[in-house]
Amino acid sequence: MKERYIVGVDLGGTNIVAGAMPFDGGREYAIRTGLSKVADGPNGVVARIAAMVEEVIAQTTSETGASRDQFIGLGVGSPGPLNRDTGVVISAHNLGFFDFPLRDELSKAVNLPATLDNDARCATLGEHWLGAARGVRNVLGMTIGTGIGGGLIFDGHLYHGASDVAGEIGHMTIDSTGRRCKCGNYGCLEAYASGPAIAERAREALEGNEDSILPSLVGGDVTKITAQVVYDASKKGDVVAREVVRDTARFLGTGISNLINVFNPDMVVIAGGVTQAGDALFEPLRAEVRRRAFKPAVDACQIVPGALPLSAGMVGAVATFKQRTFGEL
Amino acid sequence: MKERYIVGVDLGGTNIVAGAMPFDGGREYAIRTGLSKVADGPNGVVARIAAMVEEVIAQTTSETGASRDQFIGLGVGSPGPLNRDTGVVISAHNLGFFDFPLRDELSKAVNLPATLDNDARCATLGEHWLGAARGVRNVLGMTIGTGIGGGLIFDGHLYHGASDVAGEIGHMTIDSTGRRCKCGNYGCLEAYASGPAIAERAREALEGNEDSILPSLVGGDVTKITAQVVYDASKKGDVVAREVVRDTARFLGTGISNLINVFNPDMVVIAGGVTQAGDALFEPLRAEVRRRAFKPAVDACQIVPGALPLSAGMVGAVATFKQRTFGEL
Repeated sequence: MKERYIVGVDLGGTNIVAGAMPFDGGREYAIRTGLSKVADGPNGVVARIAAMVEEVIAQTTSETGASRDQFIGLGVGSPGPLNRDTGVVISAHNLGFFDFPLRDELSKAVNLPATLDNDARCATLGEHWLGAARGVRNVLGMTIGTGIGGGLIFDGHLYHGASDVAGEIGHMTIDSTGRRCKCGNYGCLEAYASGPAIAERAREALEGNEDSILPSLVGGDVTKITAQVVYDASKKGDVVAREVVRDTARFLGTGISNLINVFNPDMVVIAGGVTQAGDALFEPLRAEVRRRAFKPAVDACQIVPGALPLSAGMVGAVATFKQRTFGEL
Repeated sequence: MKERYIVGVDLGGTNIVAGAMPFDGGREYAIRTGLSKVADGPNGVVARIAAMVEEVIAQTTSETGASRDQFIGLGVGSPGPLNRDTGVVISAHNLGFFDFPLRDELSKAVNLPATLDNDARCATLGEHWLGAARGVRNVLGMTIGTGIGGGLIFDGHLYHGASDVAGEIGHMTIDSTGRRCKCGNYGCLEAYASGPAIAERAREALEGNEDSILPSLVGGDVTKITAQVVYDASKKGDVVAREVVRDTARFLGTGISNLINVFNPDMVVIAGGVTQAGDALFEPLRAEVRRRAFKPAVDACQIVPGALPLSAGMVGAVATFKQRTFGEL
């Protein structure tokens, strides 16, 4: 039988990543990235993704000599609560999706069968299939970017919950009288440790503090500070940035301790840009978890950065298509 | 074949409950209760439980005409992190257990094969087998008593985690700069909403507040206030007690919202004495959860009191013996 290929799309709050993989996941082809935000709303997002998928298919066929009919489907990961059965995204504010039938619109646009799952769950499944969590029985996956998402693998299987929305760890309360979150609550983990929250805490820390290179890294315009800029400054020894990274580790450590106590995973795998912070983040984070969580649970659990920093969501989207269409991976 | 019976023991931080059930769980026999604390440490606890088990067997045989050899085993639920495979309780401070081989000591004392699991997990399994969560696919069970424990049923199966300690929801941080917990951390759910924490908050609320019947319910000795006394006063309309119950609902609602967002269960079933508070607790609790948690997760989830307020842990201990010895329930 000729090799079969599956296209994966990871639609995030900020970026889109698309690529193709052969059926056995042996390698990644033709990775493309683009911005998620478009001027013309949901249909514009669909058009952009469809164009990326066609580019991925064209490049993959040219690299492998495969023909278009060897591409058997499209797996899509999207933010927001969604319904896997109907393929509808219930809401994804950043993208203007409200009850939007993303799966079927994309399927029509590229003329391939498609499946839809949550982006953080896809990233977790990607790390479980081919990344840092390969063969691990109980896994908590976290994605830290525009928001904080989660995926849960129990006894080797991706868990979806009663209504397909399991894993919303970003809105776990860690300080019930704390910072206001854009969800309307107070003290959510996401209000402290998402990319935008890290940038905001850095801007706050700069007030009345002249002794930092952060402003110089953004041409003096502190509104341009991002989490990545904070990590870069921290690596250069900037005292303000290092304090922000240490606080981030403390907040994430509190949230992760809660989750380790509750579900005693073998591994916590953290995907997304935040992993770029490296040991400056992971070492104080692990220390905070050791300080807060139960020893028998901490001792059983590794906390690691993802092995597929760019592509975990795309790989997991391919995996969800394969799993949903053919059963097991 | 003659009917087979299994004895269940629910060892809590304060009380022991023992009873017997036929193999199919058709009814409960010979329920006995006793206090967990004994003067002579772990061996005293074993002796007390063994005596209760013998009473249970004697009464059940006299009621049913069964003979002793129809009793095939003993299931035990115990607090504390423990190892199901070795039958050792790693630590249970209230009972003075540290690396204590509870399962084998009991098995020897009553001359029956025995199994050991966590008390809150047993209560959750009991409610799933024969109580409020019967047939429910994804369940979060909570026990609120001397401590706050949890059990998780995913896709119909009791989940244990990587090292058998899943479900430690009592030490979830809900306010990272909040009340000191006896575990050493700050802001744990248990520091706000366990039985002793409820009583402590009531005593604090009485300071400088003359207008409450609480002192009169304990003969003027406020150290004797318990959560039950607070519920009783609240039902009688006492303003201080009602405020304490409302705050309890708010704290529990915050913790449960976190768990509903993460696990998206079909049901949260709350066992233990706290359920005696009835609607005065459950209604504000459900309101807090609706306010805090994700709508698609809240809409999918019932929050209910357990249907086996006295015996869920005992029933679940029977179930764990049956499941571990014979496979499925």
